[in-house]
Amino acid sequence: MKGKVYLVGAGPGDPELLTVKALRLLQSAVAVLHDDLVAPEILQFIPPTAQVHNVGKRCGKKNIQQEEINFLMIALAESGLDVVRLKSGDPLIFGRAGEEIESLRKAGVQFEVVPGITAALGGAATSAIPLTHRRVSSAVVFLTAHQASERESADWSKLAASGATLVLYMPGKNYSQLAAKLQSAGLAPTTPCAVLSRVTTPHQQTHHTTIAELRRAPQLPAPTLLVVGEVVRLADPAALAAEFAPASVPTNPLYANFARNEEPVA
Amino acid sequence: MKGKVYLVGAGPGDPELLTVKALRLLQSAVAVLHDDLVAPEILQFIPPTAQVHNVGKRCGKKNIQQEEINFLMIALAESGLDVVRLKSGDPLIFGRAGEEIESLRKAGVQFEVVPGITAALGGAATSAIPLTHRRVSSAVVFLTAHQASERESADWSKLAASGATLVLYMPGKNYSQLAAKLQSAGLAPTTPCAVLSRVTTPHQQTHHTTIAELRRAPQLPAPTLLVVGEVVRLADPAALAAEFAPASVPTNPLYANFARNEEPVA
Repeated sequence: MKGKVYLVGAGPGDPELLTVKALRLLQSAVAVLHDDLVAPEILQFIPPTAQVHNVGKRCGKKNIQQEEINFLMIALAESGLDVVRLKSGDPLIFGRAGEEIESLRKAGVQFEVVPGITAALGGAATSAIPLTHRRVSSAVVFLTAHQASERESADWSKLAASGATLVLYMPGKNYSQLAAKLQSAGLAPTTPCAVLSRVTTPHQQTHHTTIAELRRAPQLPAPTLLVVGEVVRLADPAALAAEFAPASVPTNPLYANFARNEEPVA
Repeated sequence: MKGKVYLVGAGPGDPELLTVKALRLLQSAVAVLHDDLVAPEILQFIPPTAQVHNVGKRCGKKNIQQEEINFLMIALAESGLDVVRLKSGDPLIFGRAGEEIESLRKAGVQFEVVPGITAALGGAATSAIPLTHRRVSSAVVFLTAHQASERESADWSKLAASGATLVLYMPGKNYSQLAAKLQSAGLAPTTPCAVLSRVTTPHQQTHHTTIAELRRAPQLPAPTLLVVGEVVRLADPAALAAEFAPASVPTNPLYANFARNEEPVA
C-alpha cells in the first residue's frame, strides 16, 4: 500500500510557532524531505530512526530540480512510507506546493496540506505591525520580488496604487533598485517601510525606514521581508525593543535544545 | 506589578492548528478574553480556574464596543493578571489587534503578539488551492468585503487587475452583488472562484464555481471565504473529496473531547 504525503508548513523559525499538528507529524515521522530554511531546532523533533533528506536548493546539491524532489517524494510514498514534506512558512505561499500537488495527483499518491505560519504573519507579530487596520489599510498583499520581470512591474503599480499593505518576500539586497521600483509603482517616498530579518528567531532584526531612505538601510541577513505601507508607522520601534525582549526568553520544554549562546535579538 | 497581555491567534478552527505557543498560553491562562468565532474545542484548553470573558460582538452583549474590550483587557492587566486575548485566525489580519495594541501602549501595559493560522491559509490547505503558483499567480491579496465602500471599490479594481489571487474575508451572502463587483473590477466572468465555509472544522464545505455562476452558489454557513483566481482551477474537487476525508478523523489526544456526532465534511 502506498504511503501518504503530508505537505507541512514549518512556520517562520521559532519552533513554538509550529502547529500542534505539524509537531505531531514530525515527532512520528518515518521519512522527511525538508527545505534549507527549516531551522535545526525544528528538525530535532524528527525521530533519529527516520530517513531525512535535505532537498534545499541552496545546500549540497545546488542544482536540485523541482522534478527530483517530486520523484523522491513519490518514490518514498510508493515504497509504502508516509512522507512529511516540510517547508518553511506555509506550503501554499511561495512554497511551490502547487507543483508538488500536481505531481502527487498524477502519481495517484494521497496527500494532505498542513498550513503553517507564513513569514509575513510571524514578522508582523514580533514587530507589532498590524497588516490590516480599520483606519489605515483594508487589504494586505503578499508578493515576491524574486522573479521580478517587466510584467510583474505592471502588477506592482496596481498593487501599490490600491492602498493595500505590501509584504515582499525575498526582496533581495538591492535596496536602491527596490526603492526605485516602489516609487515608480506610485508610492510616495515618505511611505514607511521595514526590513525584517530572520523573523521569530533569536537572530531577528528589524530596520524601520521610508522608501526614500531604504537605500541606506543595513544589509540584514536572509531570509528577509520588506513590509511597506502606512501600517508600519503604527509599530513603535522604541516601545518594541522593551516589549519584545522578554518574549525571546524560552520558557517551554520544547526549547530544551534551543541554541542560547547566540547573538541577542536586535 | 502589571500583568502582560498576549494577543494570540487561535487559528481557523481545528484545535490542532493552534501553534504550540498558543496552546501553552491557553493551558496556563489565568484570564482570557475571546471572540465569538473561537471554537469551543479550543476554549476547553483553558483551566477551569481561569476567568473567561466572551467579548464577541455577536453574542450576549450585542453592542460591546472596542473601547469596552480595551478597558477590560487593561483593567485585568493592571490588577496584576496576565491576559490572553484570543482571536480567531491571526490577530493582525482583520483582527483589530492594531487598535488594541494602541490602547495597551497608552496604558503602559506590556504585550506580545502570537501569530495564528489565518483563515485563508487554513482554507487553502484543506481545499488544496495554492495561493501562489510560479506559472499562475505571483501574489495573493487578503481583503474584506465587509466594509465595502466606494473608495474600496476603486481598490478592488486595482487589486483585481493585478492578476493576484484574491481571498475575500467576510464576503457576505449577497453573491450576485459580489459577482457584479468583481466583474466591474475587471475580472472575466469565467474566472474560477470557490466559497469556503467553516474551514478546517468538521463542518467545512467548499463550493467551486466561476464569477458568472457565483450568484447560483449555495448559501454556506459563516464564517466563509471567497477565493478568486486561476489558482482555484488547480484544486480538483473530486480528487479532494477522497483526499480530505481521512484527514477529518482525529488521531491526536487533543481531540479527546472534539465533537464527533456532527455532520460530515462535505
